[in-house]
Amino acid sequence: MVERKHDREFVRTFFTSPTAVQGEDDSAKMIRSASQLSGMQAPDVWVPDNEDATAPSMREEGAENIVEVVAENGADFPGEIHPRVVWHRDSPQTRYQGFQQMMTIMDPEGGAAEHIDGFVIPEVGGIDDWKKADEFITIIENEYGYEEGSIKMSVIIESGLSELAMGDLPDEMVKRTNNMERMFLLVDGEVDYTKDMRAITPSGNLPPWPELRHNTSRGASAAGLIAVDGPYDDIRDVEGYRERMKENQAKGMLGIWSLTPGQVVEANKSPLPPQSGSWLLNVGDQQVELDEEDGRQVYRGDALSLAESGDGYVLTVGNDERELDEEELSKELLDMAEYIPSMNDIVDSMEEFEAAKEGGKGAIAMERSATIVIDGVEVDISNDRMWDEATYQAAMTPISLFQDVYENRPDQHEDLADLYSEDILERAMNVGA
Amino acid sequence: MVERKHDREFVRTFFTSPTAVQGEDDSAKMIRSASQLSGMQAPDVWVPDNEDATAPSMREEGAENIVEVVAENGADFPGEIHPRVVWHRDSPQTRYQGFQQMMTIMDPEGGAAEHIDGFVIPEVGGIDDWKKADEFITIIENEYGYEEGSIKMSVIIESGLSELAMGDLPDEMVKRTNNMERMFLLVDGEVDYTKDMRAITPSGNLPPWPELRHNTSRGASAAGLIAVDGPYDDIRDVEGYRERMKENQAKGMLGIWSLTPGQVVEANKSPLPPQSGSWLLNVGDQQVELDEEDGRQVYRGDALSLAESGDGYVLTVGNDERELDEEELSKELLDMAEYIPSMNDIVDSMEEFEAAKEGGKGAIAMERSATIVIDGVEVDISNDRMWDEATYQAAMTPISLFQDVYENRPDQHEDLADLYSEDILERAMNVGA
Amino acid sequence: MVERKHDREFVRTFFTSPTAVQGEDDSAKMIRSASQLSGMQAPDVWVPDNEDATAPSMREEGAENIVEVVAENGADFPGEIHPRVVWHRDSPQTRYQGFQQMMTIMDPEGGAAEHIDGFVIPEVGGIDDWKKADEFITIIENEYGYEEGSIKMSVIIESGLSELAMGDLPDEMVKRTNNMERMFLLVDGEVDYTKDMRAITPSGNLPPWPELRHNTSRGASAAGLIAVDGPYDDIRDVEGYRERMKENQAKGMLGIWSLTPGQVVEANKSPLPPQSGSWLLNVGDQQVELDEEDGRQVYRGDALSLAESGDGYVLTVGNDERELDEEELSKELLDMAEYIPSMNDIVDSMEEFEAAKEGGKGAIAMERSATIVIDGVEVDISNDRMWDEATYQAAMTPISLFQDVYENRPDQHEDLADLYSEDILERAMNVGA
Repeated sequence: MVERKHDREFVRTFFTSPTAVQGEDDSAKMIRSASQLSGMQAPDVWVPDNEDATAPSMREEGAENIVEVVAENGADFPGEIHPRVVWHRDSPQTRYQGFQQMMTIMDPEGGAAEHIDGFVIPEVGGIDDWKKADEFITIIENEYGYEEGSIKMSVIIESGLSELAMGDLPDEMVKRTNNMERMFLLVDGEVDYTKDMRAITPSGNLPPWPELRHNTSRGASAAGLIAVDGPYDDIRDVEGYRERMKENQAKGMLGIWSLTPGQVVEANKSPLPPQSGSWLLNVGDQQVELDEEDGRQVYRGDALSLAESGDGYVLTVGNDERELDEEELSKELLDMAEYIPSMNDIVDSMEEFEAAKEGGKGAIAMERSATIVIDGVEVDISNDRMWDEATYQAAMTPISLFQDVYENRPDQHEDLADLYSEDILERAMNVGA
Repeated sequence: MVERKHDREFVRTFFTSPTAVQGEDDSAKMIRSASQLSGMQAPDVWVPDNEDATAPSMREEGAENIVEVVAENGADFPGEIHPRVVWHRDSPQTRYQGFQQMMTIMDPEGGAAEHIDGFVIPEVGGIDDWKKADEFITIIENEYGYEEGSIKMSVIIESGLSELAMGDLPDEMVKRTNNMERMFLLVDGEVDYTKDMRAITPSGNLPPWPELRHNTSRGASAAGLIAVDGPYDDIRDVEGYRERMKENQAKGMLGIWSLTPGQVVEANKSPLPPQSGSWLLNVGDQQVELDEEDGRQVYRGDALSLAESGDGYVLTVGNDERELDEEELSKELLDMAEYIPSMNDIVDSMEEFEAAKEGGKGAIAMERSATIVIDGVEVDISNDRMWDEATYQAAMTPISLFQDVYENRPDQHEDLADLYSEDILERAMNVGA
Repeated sequence: MVERKHDREFVRTFFTSPTAVQGEDDSAKMIRSASQLSGMQAPDVWVPDNEDATAPSMREEGAENIVEVVAENGADFPGEIHPRVVWHRDSPQTRYQGFQQMMTIMDPEGGAAEHIDGFVIPEVGGIDDWKKADEFITIIENEYGYEEGSIKMSVIIESGLSELAMGDLPDEMVKRTNNMERMFLLVDGEVDYTKDMRAITPSGNLPPWPELRHNTSRGASAAGLIAVDGPYDDIRDVEGYRERMKENQAKGMLGIWSLTPGQVVEANKSPLPPQSGSWLLNVGDQQVELDEEDGRQVYRGDALSLAESGDGYVLTVGNDERELDEEELSKELLDMAEYIPSMNDIVDSMEEFEAAKEGGKGAIAMERSATIVIDGVEVDISNDRMWDEATYQAAMTPISLFQDVYENRPDQHEDLADLYSEDILERAMNVGA
């Protein structure tokens, strides 16, 4: 894996707040309240947003608000702070404004700079455009006497050009002529990307852009960065937000934009393993979670039915009736069943594999069994899965994420202790060590 | 957005015709009739096809037929004219034939050249192969005294090499050593691409190639070009053609190949917003359009049923019965509902946002409400959607396309007036100005 | 198509075996038995696996086992032999071990070298890392006096960096400073790729990675190599393995990893055209194969029903009832129907097209008709499909694969004769010649 050079190796949440709101007594109201978030409501990366979330006429005031609020509350903020400034690949004027905003924010006299971890640069184009932003940050570092490369830089991928630029990044970021190793997040911005790609959907909803998300995740993997998905606009739709995160996680994109503290809570929890394991049955296109009852897993849907018949069974899936003996039935249900391991299960498996490895074994079988109940009929299923070094390494990802969170977010220890037992927390911190 | 340098910023239709047919009194019959199309039957780009659609033995005659027919009818043809000549990345002989065909067609003495907008080059390989075609066109421009760069060039992406080359295009096309800024269309050619990729499907049908289409659309976005999908072979299958175009549009690929004037009509209309808005309900995997009746939206499917029960409601979705109060029911249906805005709706929203922006607001809520009727029970739903600058810009795409069509295709004004009222046409032309 | 430079133009199967197993009398047991496979159980490429399948402490012994077993049985092994050695983009130590293992295996004194076709290099990174492996192989060729470039090299794509590197390959592999034209297979390794991309799925199952598979297939197409998918872990799940291969084939990825001789048999047969043709009906999301009975195709599912009614018909699809006349019914069923041609059918069509081409025709209509029986009611359907040169070329892929197998795998002639008649075998070998 390409080494990640910054403190955080994982970022679950990227929360934006308008820096200056018109018509309020305190135009900094939104960032003032955001700066006081903590625990699960506080994001891993907080983004005072001096670009799209703030009206153009308010952005000068926005930059000053950032200075004021971060100077006051930055020391206590539990996540990292990365303001977004204006930028555009097609406009030197906008780029120079972005430079000026960064100058304002990083001025040591303002008292905010020491709490600022980096900047988010939107609307970047090809790799040469990324370098212009990097160069401005280098100038700021030199002007104010910060260490060269110490201010992180993240970009929003919202054009075809920047999607392509991610492929150039591994070779370009190591050149001596830039300080691009400051790169931190690759964040998709699907609304502007949709505009840039000139896509149309009948309802005006955003296209799903699976290839963009793949390419961003791959870009992060290849350059040692962190991939973050764009905003999920329908704030009320918690189920949809969770579904999107599940899809993203299967692509290696473990972070997501959050528009409200409620979304932050969801997104902070989403990539963490569940408290308790559960069994699912895949029937046709549908996935039904089984109800645990006295150690048995009870199916309560109506797409499946099961009856004993003579010395065998009749299993009905939709309209398809099958006569099966006990072994065939068990095999059939095993094929349909899927187990979602808990944090406890994952830690158990990893410890077991680590012990086996120390004992000189390269691969061991992990057994998983259950009694499934359909229409009152009980069926035992059992499965062996081979674990080798590669399985172990791939299973490590959610644990590494947990460890990164636990180390960097002491403000979430209480919430984590509500989710997991003390014993599990400790063992999870020691796995892979 | 990368600036598009040619007259047309959008191309909906790419219609090919055989240039010389054997065994006919008039071998130019097909292009002669195609050259007389107008209105919705006439494509944005017409392609007299001197490659695959024409037998190899007929291609010399084909080039002469192009000259004859375009000299005669080219001045009146309402779209652009881009003949396809032969070319192959692996064959210098074929490439030289392509050069000769272009020389024949562009000879000022023939009288066709002034009506020819560019050439379509099939079977290109890596970017160096594209440059060979560009160089031949530069030589033709110099030989005959046309302005350098004035003849457009489009390519067919039908190999893995050319798919990769699109990533190199933004940096290569601006070099002083070529005139590649003449580039116009990136057109997928899925039949030959399938061969080049050595893909197999059981039925012999073409694979869907979603990644290719994404990459072509991205290539167009990054280089300021226009993306066009390949031919849809099953000419009778209008529904399938429409579905394909809808998919493509969600990828930013707004143009498609047409094999018949009937397909041209479909493809010319497909990306234009509908005359009237409509409500859909998403139930499971299915999408059902509601019937408007006295201003209410009536559901006529049978996957949903709804009944009043005491002071609440019972909503049945498939086999799943839920008891809900009025608010929960409204929320549930809102989640299922989707509105497809009409041209009128889109123009309204954009004007509203433009007015708000002038009034100093950066974001406004657009409300959309309806009364939905299921099994005779009425339910009111209502949704606010936040519009900011980015939403506005993304919603602009179908309007920009419409404006491009309206400006460049006066022959379609009558058809457009049948679709939209005079008032809407005028307002749509002024939005975003 | 980019020319493929090696003997095999297609590889269906990539079968790995542990080179040294601890605690056995004969630590070479697994490769000894694998080396004696033949016929459908023998893979096109056999990979004595001195990396992940073999415990780190056993790998020195593993390299010696390869020498011993290949020296003894290599001459008779019907496929190619490509041992996998250790390698890692992040570890010079591992890379040097890989070099030493290759030196051991290729030492002419061991007697194995003449039967070794190439090496498989896992865990490669960017293109410069690929070149390091190429250089080691060049040194080995010079050291032992083999022709430069004669030892093939295949890589496992299991990182974002190597996925990107495939885009650089066409330009890099032809440089005079390397011998990368030895490149042979691009093999996906989804377990380690999942780790490198840091992807998470709830159950711990592998994500499907469709974009990776596309990019690997495209990389192979662009560089004249062969694409192979990674291991399918659930050995019992034959249906799932077949489904995966079908998906891969539609992406142009015709080879797949096999973990057992049983999987080898499945994967050797999968891309070959079927013995007999069959009709399918697509009803909603489902595909039902029709039963041939006295030359008629009988539908036995229950998602469709059909009845005569007056002088017309009533066709019921799910809950949707439609009244149709004979022509409409025939058209409706034609839209649902799909024909899966047999080897015989494909050879017939190709011969027919070849004859037409010789007769000067560029395109001909291929007719396909059937009598479909639903609920006892017979309906005749018939379809014309246009074949032109491109259709012919795309249809050639399964035949070219068959020809490649037939030429290179005489040990499978008997199995092929069980599948296809003698006459068909002969004609299939002559098509496209």
